[in-house]
Amino acid sequence: MQPSSSFPRAGILLVGNELLRGEIPDRNGAFMGGELTSMGFQVERIVTVPDGIEAIACVTRDLHLSHDLLVVMGGLGPTGDDLTTEAIAQALSIPLEFHEESWQRIVMIYASRGRTPPEVNRKQALIPQGAEVLPNPQGTAPGYLFQHEGHWIAVLPGPPRENQAIFGESLKNRLREIFPTAFPRRQRILRIFGLTESQVAERIEELARKSSVEFRYLFRFPEILVLLSAHPSEEKVLDETARKAHALLEPHVYTEGEKTLPEVVGLILKERHLKVVAVESCTGGLGAKLLTDIPGSSAWFERGFVVYTNDAKEEVLGVPKEILQEFGAVSEETALAMLKGGLEHSRADVGFAITGVAGPTGGTREKPVGTVCIAVGDRKRGKVKTYHFSWDREYNRLISVWTALHRLRLWILSSM
Amino acid sequence: MQPSSSFPRAGILLVGNELLRGEIPDRNGAFMGGELTSMGFQVERIVTVPDGIEAIACVTRDLHLSHDLLVVMGGLGPTGDDLTTEAIAQALSIPLEFHEESWQRIVMIYASRGRTPPEVNRKQALIPQGAEVLPNPQGTAPGYLFQHEGHWIAVLPGPPRENQAIFGESLKNRLREIFPTAFPRRQRILRIFGLTESQVAERIEELARKSSVEFRYLFRFPEILVLLSAHPSEEKVLDETARKAHALLEPHVYTEGEKTLPEVVGLILKERHLKVVAVESCTGGLGAKLLTDIPGSSAWFERGFVVYTNDAKEEVLGVPKEILQEFGAVSEETALAMLKGGLEHSRADVGFAITGVAGPTGGTREKPVGTVCIAVGDRKRGKVKTYHFSWDREYNRLISVWTALHRLRLWILSSM
Repeated sequence: MQPSSSFPRAGILLVGNELLRGEIPDRNGAFMGGELTSMGFQVERIVTVPDGIEAIACVTRDLHLSHDLLVVMGGLGPTGDDLTTEAIAQALSIPLEFHEESWQRIVMIYASRGRTPPEVNRKQALIPQGAEVLPNPQGTAPGYLFQHEGHWIAVLPGPPRENQAIFGESLKNRLREIFPTAFPRRQRILRIFGLTESQVAERIEELARKSSVEFRYLFRFPEILVLLSAHPSEEKVLDETARKAHALLEPHVYTEGEKTLPEVVGLILKERHLKVVAVESCTGGLGAKLLTDIPGSSAWFERGFVVYTNDAKEEVLGVPKEILQEFGAVSEETALAMLKGGLEHSRADVGFAITGVAGPTGGTREKPVGTVCIAVGDRKRGKVKTYHFSWDREYNRLISVWTALHRLRLWILSSM
Repeated sequence: MQPSSSFPRAGILLVGNELLRGEIPDRNGAFMGGELTSMGFQVERIVTVPDGIEAIACVTRDLHLSHDLLVVMGGLGPTGDDLTTEAIAQALSIPLEFHEESWQRIVMIYASRGRTPPEVNRKQALIPQGAEVLPNPQGTAPGYLFQHEGHWIAVLPGPPRENQAIFGESLKNRLREIFPTAFPRRQRILRIFGLTESQVAERIEELARKSSVEFRYLFRFPEILVLLSAHPSEEKVLDETARKAHALLEPHVYTEGEKTLPEVVGLILKERHLKVVAVESCTGGLGAKLLTDIPGSSAWFERGFVVYTNDAKEEVLGVPKEILQEFGAVSEETALAMLKGGLEHSRADVGFAITGVAGPTGGTREKPVGTVCIAVGDRKRGKVKTYHFSWDREYNRLISVWTALHRLRLWILSSM
């Protein structure tokens, strides 16, 4: 059996001039594509069209007929630019109805801010006849869902916060009821840091070739994801294959599943009751930022120092002037002294220190752009290494922090 | 005259299962849409299709016929999944040719890493007959450009780094030669922070209603962009309107044009030879990160303190224990003491301090999630204010930093 034959087919229609003009990068396509895929849909098209009745109507007809489910996102606002509902009604010849309950919700939202809604908002309560309203917990425009000629159409507002809330609170469950046979492939994800794509491929290509499991590689800077998937009936083989691939890729698999490297490091720190200090020069707070992005990080993130200048390294951390003069700010000696100073000037148990030349300028012949020295360690000892990255400033900074976190993870696992 | 009648029409075709499955958010559509729009194209469709010959061929035929220019991105790699060139050849019945020069470039790239390319890479040198090769300065897969039945097709590899380099180095100029009549609308951008969408609308709706200039609003958290555009013949009216709108929105317009708020603050600091210190609790280094994202920030970013714990606030900055005990870590008194300590423990001229409850937990009845105290000032005095944000952790952190930067900007402009 072709597994794909059991997948319901889905299309996504995104409405908005701002997306076509590149004024904002789209986030809705990836969100909805990911959600529908994980529910077992095969997402076959994402189409972006301008805020125009004709374009919306024409693509709606197209995608509606060729897919079991069409999700339309955007163009439900109150202004003259917002034409999605009108266009869908025209495309499928369905009359619109005023939905009193939705209007009352809009009135309430305005009332809670001490205002009454302008007349233009009334159009947000217009819904195709017979459609099921999907309430919007985050805004005024409700979504809706209906069946037409055997195919389903869901329509959601454009702001990610709003459509994600509607999806989570009602649409997802409704789709589960409507498409109970959706048959998601089982998937395992290995997340890898510190190998190139071809190094990953070399290590596991033999395993992949001999296996019935599907192997895919995804380079999502600075990490690589190996996605293993199989039909649900092959779940045991899938687990066995994931175990083998994991072993072949060690010590670079930092987790299986959805967690990011900062989250994995946070979890390890939390489990072992350790606190961390971030000492940063060229990464300028990015390391502290990535760690404190995580809710609850105050349990294990102690403090951070952004010692961008030489003065700061000396004055804040006590890095000896002689080290800075003899070896320079970008040196293994300075990185180790920064780490030592950071631990001495904090209550942390472990830490990392990063000093380097992120670019685009500031490089020298001896220490070109991309030279980064990274130290990790605890109060007793530290380990330092020099790297030569060759990306742009943004990527050099990001890979520097990931390298520090990955080495800190290995340090803790092997020595604490 | 309808200005749009003079615009050449463009479509964009994105190839990749990973985009449909939401495994990576697309960046190519926004990039190419923005570039083509700024060159005067009217971008009418962005379509994402799976890695399959049939889908790519079918949409290529469709978009090719209905647009003056079709840009196809992705699916030019060496693996079995990469089918774009084959699909285009099939769709338009054009034979493929082996392009020796491109193959030699691939061989050279491998040679520089001490390797020889595998046989599979040969297919990256296959190009539709008669197409013009667009060399890839960042990778092995060249792009190419050709005309077919009076319409143009450009094909580029999927990695943003590669297609952006090809676009910048050759495609952009070629398109300018091919479409010399492209007639971009003139545009002015006002970037606004600290007003809601409806507050922006209220201030300028009368101006907008009476003007021949097109007004559009773009909410790109945490800022709002007002985009004014007009036909090139109306450039004087456009400038005059932008000037009026700017005045009506003061002091919230932090710049006109493309610069972000951190860049604008950096520029002000640089011009006035001032250095800044970032003192952060709940934003955990995000402020330092956003400032040091900017190349050359070492000229005006002095150092940063991530004082996440009370211990850190006391020990690193000398925030008096009594203040922390009497008023709490999230208080205007603590924010001011953090700012004072940060300036005393640095060589900076100005600074900001942020302490708050970013969420999702950690709130109390008195100080709920979203309560943030922000101080800005110099060595002589500081100003502090309490905010109540109601977003999630990520947005609360981001808007806190932007608020600090915006207030720092106003502080410097008004008092230094």
